[in-house]
Amino acid sequence: MVKIAQRYLEIDPWRVVEKGFHPEQSRVSESIFALANEYMGVRGYFEEGYGGEQLIGSYFSGFYEEAPVNRQAAYKGLIDRARFMVNTVDWLFTRIEMDGETLDLARSKVRDFQRTLDFKSGTLDREFIWETGRGKQLKLHFRRFVSMVRPNLGAQQITFTPLNFSGPVQVQSGLDFSPVHAEKKRNFWCCPRQGVEDGIVAILGKTENLGHKLFSGFQLRLDGAPKTGLIEREKFIGLEFVFDLKCGEPVTMTKMVTNYAAQNPGLTVDEVWQQGIRLAAGHQALSFAEALAEHMAFWAEIWRDLDITIEGDPENQQGIRFCLFQLHQTFHGANPGGNIGAKGLTGEAYNGHTFWDTETYCLPFYIFNNPSAARNLLEFRYRTLPQALARAKELDCNGAFYPIATIDGTESCGLWQHASLQLQVGSAVAYGIWHYTKVCGDLDFLYTKGIEMLIEISRYYASRGQWSPRTGEFGFYGVMGPDEFHMMVNNNCYLNFMAKKTFEFTLETLARMGTERPDLLAAVAAKTGLQPGEREDWAVMAAKMRLPQDKETGLYEQHDGYFDLPHLDPASIPVTEFPLYDHWAYDRIYRYDLIKQPDVLMFMFLYNQEFPEEVKRVNYDYYEPRCLHESSLSPSIHSIFANELGYYDQAARFFRFATRLDLDNYNRNTDQGLHMTSIAAAWMNIVYGFGGMRSDGPVLTFNPSIPREWQAYRFRLLYRGAILEVSVGQEEVEFKLVQRSADTAAVKVKIYGTEYLLGDSGIKLKIPARFRQ
Amino acid sequence: MVKIAQRYLEIDPWRVVEKGFHPEQSRVSESIFALANEYMGVRGYFEEGYGGEQLIGSYFSGFYEEAPVNRQAAYKGLIDRARFMVNTVDWLFTRIEMDGETLDLARSKVRDFQRTLDFKSGTLDREFIWETGRGKQLKLHFRRFVSMVRPNLGAQQITFTPLNFSGPVQVQSGLDFSPVHAEKKRNFWCCPRQGVEDGIVAILGKTENLGHKLFSGFQLRLDGAPKTGLIEREKFIGLEFVFDLKCGEPVTMTKMVTNYAAQNPGLTVDEVWQQGIRLAAGHQALSFAEALAEHMAFWAEIWRDLDITIEGDPENQQGIRFCLFQLHQTFHGANPGGNIGAKGLTGEAYNGHTFWDTETYCLPFYIFNNPSAARNLLEFRYRTLPQALARAKELDCNGAFYPIATIDGTESCGLWQHASLQLQVGSAVAYGIWHYTKVCGDLDFLYTKGIEMLIEISRYYASRGQWSPRTGEFGFYGVMGPDEFHMMVNNNCYLNFMAKKTFEFTLETLARMGTERPDLLAAVAAKTGLQPGEREDWAVMAAKMRLPQDKETGLYEQHDGYFDLPHLDPASIPVTEFPLYDHWAYDRIYRYDLIKQPDVLMFMFLYNQEFPEEVKRVNYDYYEPRCLHESSLSPSIHSIFANELGYYDQAARFFRFATRLDLDNYNRNTDQGLHMTSIAAAWMNIVYGFGGMRSDGPVLTFNPSIPREWQAYRFRLLYRGAILEVSVGQEEVEFKLVQRSADTAAVKVKIYGTEYLLGDSGIKLKIPARFRQ
Repeated sequence: MVKIAQRYLEIDPWRVVEKGFHPEQSRVSESIFALANEYMGVRGYFEEGYGGEQLIGSYFSGFYEEAPVNRQAAYKGLIDRARFMVNTVDWLFTRIEMDGETLDLARSKVRDFQRTLDFKSGTLDREFIWETGRGKQLKLHFRRFVSMVRPNLGAQQITFTPLNFSGPVQVQSGLDFSPVHAEKKRNFWCCPRQGVEDGIVAILGKTENLGHKLFSGFQLRLDGAPKTGLIEREKFIGLEFVFDLKCGEPVTMTKMVTNYAAQNPGLTVDEVWQQGIRLAAGHQALSFAEALAEHMAFWAEIWRDLDITIEGDPENQQGIRFCLFQLHQTFHGANPGGNIGAKGLTGEAYNGHTFWDTETYCLPFYIFNNPSAARNLLEFRYRTLPQALARAKELDCNGAFYPIATIDGTESCGLWQHASLQLQVGSAVAYGIWHYTKVCGDLDFLYTKGIEMLIEISRYYASRGQWSPRTGEFGFYGVMGPDEFHMMVNNNCYLNFMAKKTFEFTLETLARMGTERPDLLAAVAAKTGLQPGEREDWAVMAAKMRLPQDKETGLYEQHDGYFDLPHLDPASIPVTEFPLYDHWAYDRIYRYDLIKQPDVLMFMFLYNQEFPEEVKRVNYDYYEPRCLHESSLSPSIHSIFANELGYYDQAARFFRFATRLDLDNYNRNTDQGLHMTSIAAAWMNIVYGFGGMRSDGPVLTFNPSIPREWQAYRFRLLYRGAILEVSVGQEEVEFKLVQRSADTAAVKVKIYGTEYLLGDSGIKLKIPARFRQ
Repeated sequence: MVKIAQRYLEIDPWRVVEKGFHPEQSRVSESIFALANEYMGVRGYFEEGYGGEQLIGSYFSGFYEEAPVNRQAAYKGLIDRARFMVNTVDWLFTRIEMDGETLDLARSKVRDFQRTLDFKSGTLDREFIWETGRGKQLKLHFRRFVSMVRPNLGAQQITFTPLNFSGPVQVQSGLDFSPVHAEKKRNFWCCPRQGVEDGIVAILGKTENLGHKLFSGFQLRLDGAPKTGLIEREKFIGLEFVFDLKCGEPVTMTKMVTNYAAQNPGLTVDEVWQQGIRLAAGHQALSFAEALAEHMAFWAEIWRDLDITIEGDPENQQGIRFCLFQLHQTFHGANPGGNIGAKGLTGEAYNGHTFWDTETYCLPFYIFNNPSAARNLLEFRYRTLPQALARAKELDCNGAFYPIATIDGTESCGLWQHASLQLQVGSAVAYGIWHYTKVCGDLDFLYTKGIEMLIEISRYYASRGQWSPRTGEFGFYGVMGPDEFHMMVNNNCYLNFMAKKTFEFTLETLARMGTERPDLLAAVAAKTGLQPGEREDWAVMAAKMRLPQDKETGLYEQHDGYFDLPHLDPASIPVTEFPLYDHWAYDRIYRYDLIKQPDVLMFMFLYNQEFPEEVKRVNYDYYEPRCLHESSLSPSIHSIFANELGYYDQAARFFRFATRLDLDNYNRNTDQGLHMTSIAAAWMNIVYGFGGMRSDGPVLTFNPSIPREWQAYRFRLLYRGAILEVSVGQEEVEFKLVQRSADTAAVKVKIYGTEYLLGDSGIKLKIPARFRQ
């Protein structure tokens, strides 16, 4: 794996700092300095306007528009329209003019530039000194945040300090619906209403195709209360004013913005407008300082248990905090039925779509930090079950076929080879239900919504799978597994294994419900029209599932015929040919034993405890050298295995990539947005990797180890209502019960193979030789 | 195979006759009544204008335009522009008005409608009586032909006979560039020049994207020489005049049209215009009757040897003559480097593209009827070798990769799964060179152009193929074979076999050249940069090619893993679900053992003599029941095998479909154009099927049989300069040497397993019991 860091930011434990402006990294910085509060997100762009490379990106979670898809032919099941997260209003819009010059960091003379993202305060600050052609020096300080407490509130503050002059500066501040959606290269808005009401300067945008509406309104608070003038033009409303600056005296402009995203096209323009005005009026009494204080209090509370410390490795310390900050910003479950786009709210790549990453990579983070957020992620799949049922029909199948890429539950991946052949999302949802209910014990969810999804997913796999005429086994033909370097293969091992697990968990849950809650069983059977024959079929399909494995070595064959594929040593491929998608003929990618990301290793990760270590070793030793890690999700899983197998050098190498993927722009595409699901994997890399935690067995298990370079690391987990803290040093590990659960005084855990009851007194252990690096 | 005839045309041995107009079949008729002369083709549309369903289709062989392709993503090797046969000028444009009514068969009152396509004369006639609202009865007779002698000449004659009145009829006659390209739903023309010059009314069209130019000019000859007025509008020029009709007296309008298609965009408008005017001037002295006489003389000469007679089966007699007529019209090799589109010049479906059908299905017809046309087809591949070299590079390969669909040598199939994965065209070209030179003995071609193509094709296969790590065999991974119901498979047996043959023939030819023409060998080695190591590699690849076959039964496996594919009995699929492409989810098509068309059987057809009958039987018995025949090319090949294996009922059933595919519209898509390459297969069905001819062994071989329902059939073949006639009755077969070749008095043939020298005295044999149906 050849990945080279591209570093221009300062190392700091709690902040990302850019000292001196790096215009060549402008779009990368916009992604890294992005802010969000789950409801809305905004890239770290320059609000005063910028003549260089930029993406004015302002997004709302799950807020989408629709556009036609370039499909090759009108074959059945190929989608012709797709939904995507739409770029919205630039609510930070500002223009600053002095001496007839407009401030623009691409052209103006500036010095002492510094930009700071602070994880503790959840704020973005930027300051620099602007010198005009006539030598006037104006110090500017920009601050912004999006409130974690009030989802609709965004706040901006700009402080002007004239260093060597007195005189006027002209300022415009507004709301701009004209920015272009970068990926689609066009704007999707019209603005049927704008104006000033109750002192709120407001504008309402409506998307072209779906008619989704977005209200944006603001109030300005200006030191010295200069007179303001209204500016109105197409897709824009704002105020202009003049600050009469006095040498050395700072003056401040504060803009409190209320955004309201109304996805429901049934709401009229007037209804959305009125609701927006009401929300904005609710923010009228709130000062910037008050809003910031409650926002910072929220973050302080969060960091108490969310934080991971790494002593002796400032780079990864910063990296992991950046990951935790961004992940929590993007999604913390405040919004039931929401989900996480591959780039969060930081860019348009992947269209704001959710993939199977949510259940396989992100869910563990929420299960052990924020169970209600975990449930909300599963609620998204329940909310979109009707779309999955409809999609299965389109593809001549029964039950529920969950889409490979979606923002609202409809399939929105325009590449049929992925949309029609990748069947793993359903099994990931089933796995997510299993993992969530196993750890969090939420039987209410399992016995109502969970079981309904499980039945429909099992039904889908039963209708999509087929029987081998040669061996009488069950399996899936014509599929693409998680490894996207092999298309239309038969019996992808991952999919077969996961479908088997889906059948088994569905049957087990139905059986348990028969004993524990026959009433709910009857209800779901009636709702889904479940037939007794179906349960029998699923049992046979699970029992007869093809899982090709070399009996002697334990090596699984990734799919039928994989072992016959021509071998290519990744080291023989020139570095300039990565990523292959950009440099190789499309069809060439698919005819080697090269893999893009873990496939066999992936199901061994998800059901880790079911496989003996030696089987994991054999499979890791075989598949890792064939893996190109062209998915950003790949290195963390390999790092976790490398830790388990004692390949500590490899573990450290893969780990480095995970925590600082975006800060060091390893994949050279951070400009498009942050790799949000990889960020979740970075958390797993510490907890499952170095911490050696396993949550798929009967007892929560830990086998901590520590890189030689670190002095110590520490993380907390929320587990069955209790808060555990794990501290690992070079010699010892310590487990503490930071907070008891409501119902038990102690928590059962297994550490280095021995079961313990973790109570108030904690547990301290020497690290056994086997786990010393 | 469920195919149902849709019959509305008369049965007639030498004509297609439509009695009474069938508006619901209007577009089907346009295809069936199409005329062509290889240079240009015109559908049988109503030139006077028609308010019903119609496709005003006027095409020129190989005359194309370019348009963007809907590709899914910008992956390397996926084409973004494709070329297609463009719809051109309506040179038959006519409007007829009387009593303020415009003649239009969709609205006007007409009776005694008859439309006749005459194979002997190569003319299309149409007549009917039109009665106006005021009761005037005008008999109209339309005749048209496109001259087989003068490629640029089209002629139209309309005779007006007033049955019950005297009075004026207004007529317009013109050239119209405004018809829409039906497939692309738009017009691609602008007309930079039009006017009258030297008595020629002319217009020049230019295609929008490529700037290809087409000149069209006409002269009218009018009985009674009424005064004409010029009509000019956008994309149109014409004349209008009034015939003063006298009751009972016919008057005639004759339009002699000269079309000149200038594909070369380097030619200026003026150059093309001048050349068009010169060509039109050359037709000035020619009368309609003279032009028709030479045209009919041409056809009489052609029919002498081209004809196939079937006694006792008027339907198939008509069917096979229709096939021969259409195939000869479409292509007879007058135009070196031309080719045959899947729909010939009769429609826009398949974009006028040439596929591998040319070499595998059409070439045998030309080899045994018209060797110079056969060579011209191969010249097309030589002319487009540079494009194939460039295409291989685009796909990260060496040598020449011939496109799956093309009009000018560039890949124009917008579906990457076909364009990138179907590799069989190169081997088909190699086969065509082999078959042509084997039968026609054209070593000049083989040792110059042929060998150059063979080297580059072999080079391509060597670079695209890979070595199995499991068995050390060579083969092709990630391909689609001729059977398009399996995508991205490994070691498609057809492709592997054909590539092996390609390597072997290339090496054999190089070896022969080393002995016979070392000078030419040196020349081609220098031109292609041939390295000695390459020949060694090809020899090893050929020797080690994977051809998976059950040793005991002789059954080939169509590709790796085919025998493990779930079985579906075609009889279990409801008839309403055919064709599968239209009714099944796209991905569903690919996961059964269903096949679309012969694949293993196809290489056994092409190299028939290399396989023992029992091996052919085993493979036919296995694969035929799995074949849906969703390619129109499929039934003929199966009929030929069924004849060979003595399955005469099956042979007859498949044959019926072949000869009357379009006349009976079996596939319900004749409206889009005639299935030109299937038409060639119909010829093979008689000669190779019933005649039992095999041309791939050392001696030309025949095993004639005859369906019980037929009294006799007869066909002729051109073979090594001689003309053979084969007549088959219920008891006897007779072989005659109708014309000796220049160099030998007798031709060696093998009949029913015995070799004979066929001389002037001919051979008469009883049909052995084994070949009696």
